[in-house]
Amino acid sequence: MRAAVLNSGQILVREDVEEPVPGPGQVLVQVKACGICGSDLHFAKHGADMLALGKRMEGVPRLGGGDELDLAHDVYMGHEFAGEVIEAGPGTTAPPAGTLVTAFPILPRPDGSGIDAIVYSNRVKGGYGERIVLSAPLLQEVPNGLPAHHAALTEPMAVGLHAVNRSGIEAGQKAVVLGCGPVGLAVIGALKVRGVRSIVAADFSPARRALATGLGATDVVDPREETAWARAGSAAPVVVFEAIGVPGILDDILRCAPAQSRVVVVGVCMNADTVNPYFGISKELNLQFVLGYTPEEFAASLRSIAEGEIDVAPLVTARVGLDRVPWAFEALGDPEEHCKIIVEP
Amino acid sequence: MRAAVLNSGQILVREDVEEPVPGPGQVLVQVKACGICGSDLHFAKHGADMLALGKRMEGVPRLGGGDELDLAHDVYMGHEFAGEVIEAGPGTTAPPAGTLVTAFPILPRPDGSGIDAIVYSNRVKGGYGERIVLSAPLLQEVPNGLPAHHAALTEPMAVGLHAVNRSGIEAGQKAVVLGCGPVGLAVIGALKVRGVRSIVAADFSPARRALATGLGATDVVDPREETAWARAGSAAPVVVFEAIGVPGILDDILRCAPAQSRVVVVGVCMNADTVNPYFGISKELNLQFVLGYTPEEFAASLRSIAEGEIDVAPLVTARVGLDRVPWAFEALGDPEEHCKIIVEP
Repeated sequence: MRAAVLNSGQILVREDVEEPVPGPGQVLVQVKACGICGSDLHFAKHGADMLALGKRMEGVPRLGGGDELDLAHDVYMGHEFAGEVIEAGPGTTAPPAGTLVTAFPILPRPDGSGIDAIVYSNRVKGGYGERIVLSAPLLQEVPNGLPAHHAALTEPMAVGLHAVNRSGIEAGQKAVVLGCGPVGLAVIGALKVRGVRSIVAADFSPARRALATGLGATDVVDPREETAWARAGSAAPVVVFEAIGVPGILDDILRCAPAQSRVVVVGVCMNADTVNPYFGISKELNLQFVLGYTPEEFAASLRSIAEGEIDVAPLVTARVGLDRVPWAFEALGDPEEHCKIIVEP
Repeated sequence: MRAAVLNSGQILVREDVEEPVPGPGQVLVQVKACGICGSDLHFAKHGADMLALGKRMEGVPRLGGGDELDLAHDVYMGHEFAGEVIEAGPGTTAPPAGTLVTAFPILPRPDGSGIDAIVYSNRVKGGYGERIVLSAPLLQEVPNGLPAHHAALTEPMAVGLHAVNRSGIEAGQKAVVLGCGPVGLAVIGALKVRGVRSIVAADFSPARRALATGLGATDVVDPREETAWARAGSAAPVVVFEAIGVPGILDDILRCAPAQSRVVVVGVCMNADTVNPYFGISKELNLQFVLGYTPEEFAASLRSIAEGEIDVAPLVTARVGLDRVPWAFEALGDPEEHCKIIVEP
């Protein structure tokens, strides 16, 4: 089958990728849409650094059976997918062929030897290819006639929902969202669904500030003109969502956030970063790092989109075939032009 | 009166310091004992850097009326004090003369123009001098015949209690305390009082590990031989107390702590520090920076010491007059020799 792959830092389109075969408990799905995630862009450029950091880390549960990722071979990516059921694996029940589904992007191995994440793999196919194997128990049928290129946003929206849930923010508290890329926008959407009445969002890009307003931000600022802190009012604690993920932001938040604020770090900064703990200590700040989402949050995210609580349509700035995935990885560098590009294999 | 002061980075003993005079709402106290805090050692060496960092910081409530600290003039320090009441200011009620007291170390100004912290000041006298002015409503009478050189540990023990309270740790959770200086030991004491049944403490110094065991640590490790993580067992989340406060520790905790752990940063690292947010994100760690304590925690700390719940006696490794304060600031550099040195003016 055809698939876009990462190989030695390049995005290539292959014509002859091995067809995935569903095992027991698995379902073969025709991919209709797959969003490109910022983490994929970062992994394409800095995959080796990320893997090296991961190897240094202790105390983290390992999902897989110990597969080593080889960046010099084809790496399959694409974890924001929606597609139509083709057929179930042996002894497996699945929705009828043609049913539009999405799924929490992990794949338990039929032999019980581990769980593969559908994110970066030399073996497990992702959403940047024509067909994909998913776990039958994790399938979510897409309701309400939601089109595939909107259902594919279930995953990034779940990231925002999880961040908001972990923040514990209450309706009467002020939220400050730094960065209005897909992650920041997902946070804003989830904050609105939760009933938060004051959502200050900051981004340099006018296009992204407009998207933020559309999703529910009550105030948007261009940091060149006014800081989010000034707009939020400096006295009371706020709940900050760091959705930028570049070095320097964390220290700037520690320096500027009101005392007793909670900071949810949902932007994924892959670089070493310099901070002054003195700022955090002096103001008793709390930093909650977050990652991913639960299966329940994934399901809730799909429901919010399908029921129109969160309108993801404006986030989709392009829909492309596999041929244009290399172009899309480049194009996403310009926040004024693009927000979410959907691959339609 | 006599007082030890900080001037241009040097600790000097002055013979002719202006006598403090209690205003309305204030009480003059004869200092009997004052502990030397690690933050004083750091301020003596790096005061200019700390002030510069403080000036860069936003969003922090300012206590004072805008006094600028001048490091080239005498700076009064000493915030871990206990002493005997001499006399009350005009129109003020105080315990009888000779009553042993301690106090939350802030001093509201009689003219209502602000609140001075009794910590570093060119004007407000601290505990490294013969006499001090305290706030009448904040005085705590020292009960149970507790001697002044133990009552003086109310303040550092309150720091540990506050950190433990902010951690929200429950009796069944595992605590990991990194660093067994006075702050780490105060944390251990407070954990024991809270009923935490597993307290793993790490320090390079055998003397400090012995103190940790005395205060309630259930396991002590020498990090050269075994990590606290290995001793705690690596799977389940723990509550980590960072009581070292030197660059590099925070990143090491992010790298090694079990996923979903909470990290309470109570060690005051005054330097810029490098961290990998990737570690924190991958494991959804929570960092709670803490500072100080509430008046209620201060009172509870005094009660715990006076009632023998926390035995502070072994922490006091020397008692010196004002003459030897310069020596004491040097001597505290050796963790094997000294833990808490008490100044008895």
